[in-house]
Amino acid sequence: MTTIKNIADRLGVSVGTVSKGLNGAKDISESLRQKIIDTAIEMDYTIKRTQNEDYRKLAVFIERLEYEAKDDFAYDIVLGFKQNAIAHKWSVDIIRVTPDFQSKIRYDTYMLKSGYTGSFLIGFSLTDAWIKQLETTKVPTVMFDTYIRKNPKVCYIGVDNYEGINLAVDHLIGLGHEKIALISDTGLSAVSGERFEAFQNSMSHHGLELADGMIAKDYIYNDPVDSYVSDFLKRGATAIMCGNDMIAANVILTCIKSGYNVPEDISVVGFDDIPIASSLSPSITTISQSRRSVGKCGYVVLDSIINNFAIAKTLMRPQLIVRESTAGVNTLERIRI
Amino acid sequence: MTTIKNIADRLGVSVGTVSKGLNGAKDISESLRQKIIDTAIEMDYTIKRTQNEDYRKLAVFIERLEYEAKDDFAYDIVLGFKQNAIAHKWSVDIIRVTPDFQSKIRYDTYMLKSGYTGSFLIGFSLTDAWIKQLETTKVPTVMFDTYIRKNPKVCYIGVDNYEGINLAVDHLIGLGHEKIALISDTGLSAVSGERFEAFQNSMSHHGLELADGMIAKDYIYNDPVDSYVSDFLKRGATAIMCGNDMIAANVILTCIKSGYNVPEDISVVGFDDIPIASSLSPSITTISQSRRSVGKCGYVVLDSIINNFAIAKTLMRPQLIVRESTAGVNTLERIRI
Repeated sequence: MTTIKNIADRLGVSVGTVSKGLNGAKDISESLRQKIIDTAIEMDYTIKRTQNEDYRKLAVFIERLEYEAKDDFAYDIVLGFKQNAIAHKWSVDIIRVTPDFQSKIRYDTYMLKSGYTGSFLIGFSLTDAWIKQLETTKVPTVMFDTYIRKNPKVCYIGVDNYEGINLAVDHLIGLGHEKIALISDTGLSAVSGERFEAFQNSMSHHGLELADGMIAKDYIYNDPVDSYVSDFLKRGATAIMCGNDMIAANVILTCIKSGYNVPEDISVVGFDDIPIASSLSPSITTISQSRRSVGKCGYVVLDSIINNFAIAKTLMRPQLIVRESTAGVNTLERIRI
Repeated sequence: MTTIKNIADRLGVSVGTVSKGLNGAKDISESLRQKIIDTAIEMDYTIKRTQNEDYRKLAVFIERLEYEAKDDFAYDIVLGFKQNAIAHKWSVDIIRVTPDFQSKIRYDTYMLKSGYTGSFLIGFSLTDAWIKQLETTKVPTVMFDTYIRKNPKVCYIGVDNYEGINLAVDHLIGLGHEKIALISDTGLSAVSGERFEAFQNSMSHHGLELADGMIAKDYIYNDPVDSYVSDFLKRGATAIMCGNDMIAANVILTCIKSGYNVPEDISVVGFDDIPIASSLSPSITTISQSRRSVGKCGYVVLDSIINNFAIAKTLMRPQLIVRESTAGVNTLERIRI
């Protein structure tokens, strides 16, 4: 394990200087400080100051998602994490980041410079600069909904997408549906692929066909869903499973615009239970996870990684929330096309 | 939530009597005690005594695996669990169970009668009586390598089989192998199916064919592997991936008996890193997991479930352990068949 002494020897400076550089003291030059930090990272130096209260600092990085208001998707995740971390005598900073910010400073550099022992990342995209860097980071890191292969210092936390899709498909089949279509986005986030795979498995588990034209996994997020939905309806779909609630909301609007009633003519299921799921009319049947639990367990997992237990994934139980957008198959002859 | 008062009302006895029945006091009859326990379970009563030190009791149930000696597979799992639980002021009993034992007393009954708040199950088989009961138990339970669907009180802990198989396949491909066979057992334990699925995914991820006759997933544990191995060799396999180390050991012996050298003529990979993997000659390249970490994290997860955080799965990082049973593809003409 690299010590401050090792870094000092490599740079030919005193231990005190390295210590100043790492602790952000003002009386050394910025260029020397940068050199110390760069060398520390190169030598895999990690902060081992978890016993000293002044240095018990964790970061929550958040991108793309809102968390300030109670209704925001990430509010309970951040709150749960903070509650548990603070109860264990850590201080927590919430830091909003952008792709631009990530391209300016490396993840390891930022963490070391700021004195964070570990972090919790929420709402990142697979194309973010830091994602690539996380494959080799030595900094304990937990990511919500994004999986990094092989690095024992990084853990995934999220809902069990397989069980969530199973619950949704079981619900639809219990209502008599067999012609179930799927629309999922192309997978900027890691969950899309899992939800698509889970849908295939669930359908084949029930002996149901995945008909051509009934699966849209190439949907690009925020594009219109009209052509997909009209394809599904033409092919006789009685239910549409959506990769998330935003897609479900758009699918419902498109069905209604096309003269189909939801759920009388067609059932629609979402995923995530974002606020729109309960406030839309009809409200959306969806798969939810306890976001407070995600946050609390996110801290528990981060603590395990800081203590060198290499957890790869922690998956939370999903719940089916039955609302107005699903009902039994309409057995009347389906005349509108 | 059911209270002692509710149980007393239902049975028409005093609160004190119910309390005696649940705490195992000697001065009530065994038949009344049984009635109290049966009613408590029927009414979903759960032990809420985690604040009182006398009642902080957890159970480790173990079946099919050895744990007493340092070399035993489950030794470190049990030790890690105990270390973490005892550090958090729980007492831990290790209880060996058999299928017969399980058929005589229901899981919930045993837990309540014995005053355990939660348990950690190791080495159970999918056909065990308690497995079925775990689908509906209200008792916080963590299972090593066995997954129970949908019950928020039960969590799976085990190695990430997908990443483990990926590591093994990547290793073989890095050595130049393309004709890789798989032999896995039929799946008395839940991991077999996952390892088979992971192998399919890994091979197709690398654009490699899953040729007919190169996959044996119907192998019955402890049967001879001869016919499978001879099939693989006839079809030109240069490497054999095995569902676990015991299978790998048998495959290696069969190859040698058939006049093939391991690894010169054929590479063999196991999974689990049981003691035979390092002691056989040639020693077996395999996938390992830190069993101490499994035990320690098993406690962490059980604690989370006791606190009502519904974790479905916790997966540990696997490691590739390269030993003598794998080498680069032998490019000499393969003349022996």
